[in-house]
Amino acid sequence: MALKPLRDRLVVKPLEQEDRTKSGLVLPDSAKEKPQEGKVIATGTGKLLDDGLVKQLQVKHGERVLYGKYSGTEVTVDGQDYLILREEDVLAIVQS
Amino acid sequence: MALKPLRDRLVVKPLEQEDRTKSGLVLPDSAKEKPQEGKVIATGTGKLLDDGLVKQLQVKHGERVLYGKYSGTEVTVDGQDYLILREEDVLAIVQS
Amino acid sequence: MALKPLRDRLVVKPLEQEDRTKSGLVLPDSAKEKPQEGKVIATGTGKLLDDGLVKQLQVKHGERVLYGKYSGTEVTVDGQDYLILREEDVLAIVQS
Amino acid sequence: MALKPLRDRLVVKPLEQEDRTKSGLVLPDSAKEKPQEGKVIATGTGKLLDDGLVKQLQVKHGERVLYGKYSGTEVTVDGQDYLILREEDVLAIVQS
Amino acid sequence: MALKPLRDRLVVKPLEQEDRTKSGLVLPDSAKEKPQEGKVIATGTGKLLDDGLVKQLQVKHGERVLYGKYSGTEVTVDGQDYLILREEDVLAIVQS
Amino acid sequence: MALKPLRDRLVVKPLEQEDRTKSGLVLPDSAKEKPQEGKVIATGTGKLLDDGLVKQLQVKHGERVLYGKYSGTEVTVDGQDYLILREEDVLAIVQS
Amino acid sequence: MALKPLRDRLVVKPLEQEDRTKSGLVLPDSAKEKPQEGKVIATGTGKLLDDGLVKQLQVKHGERVLYGKYSGTEVTVDGQDYLILREEDVLAIVQS
Repeated sequence: MALKPLRDRLVVKPLEQEDRTKSGLVLPDSAKEKPQEGKVIATGTGKLLDDGLVKQLQVKHGERVLYGKYSGTEVTVDGQDYLILREEDVLAIVQS
Repeated sequence: MALKPLRDRLVVKPLEQEDRTKSGLVLPDSAKEKPQEGKVIATGTGKLLDDGLVKQLQVKHGERVLYGKYSGTEVTVDGQDYLILREEDVLAIVQS
Repeated sequence: MALKPLRDRLVVKPLEQEDRTKSGLVLPDSAKEKPQEGKVIATGTGKLLDDGLVKQLQVKHGERVLYGKYSGTEVTVDGQDYLILREEDVLAIVQS
Repeated sequence: MALKPLRDRLVVKPLEQEDRTKSGLVLPDSAKEKPQEGKVIATGTGKLLDDGLVKQLQVKHGERVLYGKYSGTEVTVDGQDYLILREEDVLAIVQS
Repeated sequence: MALKPLRDRLVVKPLEQEDRTKSGLVLPDSAKEKPQEGKVIATGTGKLLDDGLVKQLQVKHGERVLYGKYSGTEVTVDGQDYLILREEDVLAIVQS
Repeated sequence: MALKPLRDRLVVKPLEQEDRTKSGLVLPDSAKEKPQEGKVIATGTGKLLDDGLVKQLQVKHGERVLYGKYSGTEVTVDGQDYLILREEDVLAIVQS
Repeated sequence: MALKPLRDRLVVKPLEQEDRTKSGLVLPDSAKEKPQEGKVIATGTGKLLDDGLVKQLQVKHGERVLYGKYSGTEVTVDGQDYLILREEDVLAIVQS
């Protein structure tokens, strides 16, 4: 079974804390919203614009992305946790 | 009797928990909004754009979709429960 | 006397509970907003778009429609109760 | 002295309860917002659209209209009460 | 010294209660927002539209206008009180 | 060091109360928001419109402007206090 | 590892208080929101406009910028603190 996100949505597999430390990303100890890191495993067809055109997403399948802690909706498929969020909620692509 | 949803609305038949487990989808035990799974049984003619054009929906009749727990409006027709929601509220199409 | 709704508004005659049961529609016992059923007795000329064009309504005179419980404004004309609402508030057309 | 409403605004003379009963309109006894009836005595030049064009109003001088109880701003000119409201706040034109 | 309001703003000199009574305008005794009357002494160059064009104002220098009680910002120049408000806040032009 | 404000922002040097009295501007004693007076010392390149074009600002370097008391963000450079605000927050240009 | 911000987002390295004093910028002691200073180390490809076009950013890599205290999201990469914010949140470019 697979998930096909709609429009400008992405399916992201959150990275465990160990993976994130290995990639060099450490979250600061502050009261601010802390971003999360994950790997994109599915992307929508693009953002629906006001005039009906569809704008291709900038984020690609397989990329690592940062997103806000409270972004998106959690879902579990075949025992694995995923997150469905909008590209708008992606702060940055993590390049290694 | 049948329901013909307007514009970008869908009529969805929610799947029972047993069906959802069979399809491999399990909801995580967290405080986040939990998505629901259902089968699309009717679709509107499309989203009305600002300039008056109508944008065809991406979701098709018969597809399984995920949507937020508090999305849409419940209705019962001939003893069956349905949900009327906007395509905007659909997170992803479930492909088996 | 008759009511001529403006733009994208409709005048709807709410159906009594008996009529609604006959049509097969039963409302579920839940905390969610429950839709109402009514018959369209007058329609506006269409929705005024941002660029000044007028988009014809999808709902036609005489059709049965579902709408949210708290949608629109009640009015009584010649001893009969009506509801004036926007087409946007119509969830679906009921086809028999 | 006269009032010349701006853009998409109207000056309306509210009808007394007696006038309204004669016209057949009775307000239901409910917690919902109750519409008011009045006669249009002045109209603006039209609604200013986003692109700067002006869209002619649908409501004409002399017509009777229904509007929400809390719509518009009251004003008294030469001892007479009037209401200045936007065409957007007009629910329907009352045809006799 | 003079004030040159920006874009769709106006400088208005509020009329004293005596002046207002003379012009025939009396405010009703109600809980609704009461409009104020004033004389336009300066107008902006026009409203900046979304596409960058500038739409000429409808209100002219020297006209008397009605506006909501809580609209605009008070300012005193050379001992005189003025109000700076947007044309959007003007309800109607008072013609004598 | 200098500040180059972005897009439709301005850098304004607030005028001291003495300067303001000299220019004839006195603030009324009321509960309404009181405007402030300042001198524009830097302007952005213009407002970014929805279609990507840039609209030149109306306010020029060196002009005196009125703005709301709670508008903008304070900053101190080389011991001098400045305010960074949007042209939208400017009520009027003060001409002497 | 590097961060590639999306669309109209920037990655900024906040400047320490010492650096800021050297550059001549001192924050006033007031209740207003205090701006922060930082150096831009990565920029997005541009702002996505409503019609799907992408507008190049005004802020360049290497520039020093002022931004509001509560803007953006903190992130730590390889032991260094960064801030991801939108160009919209940048008040001004600091020129030395």
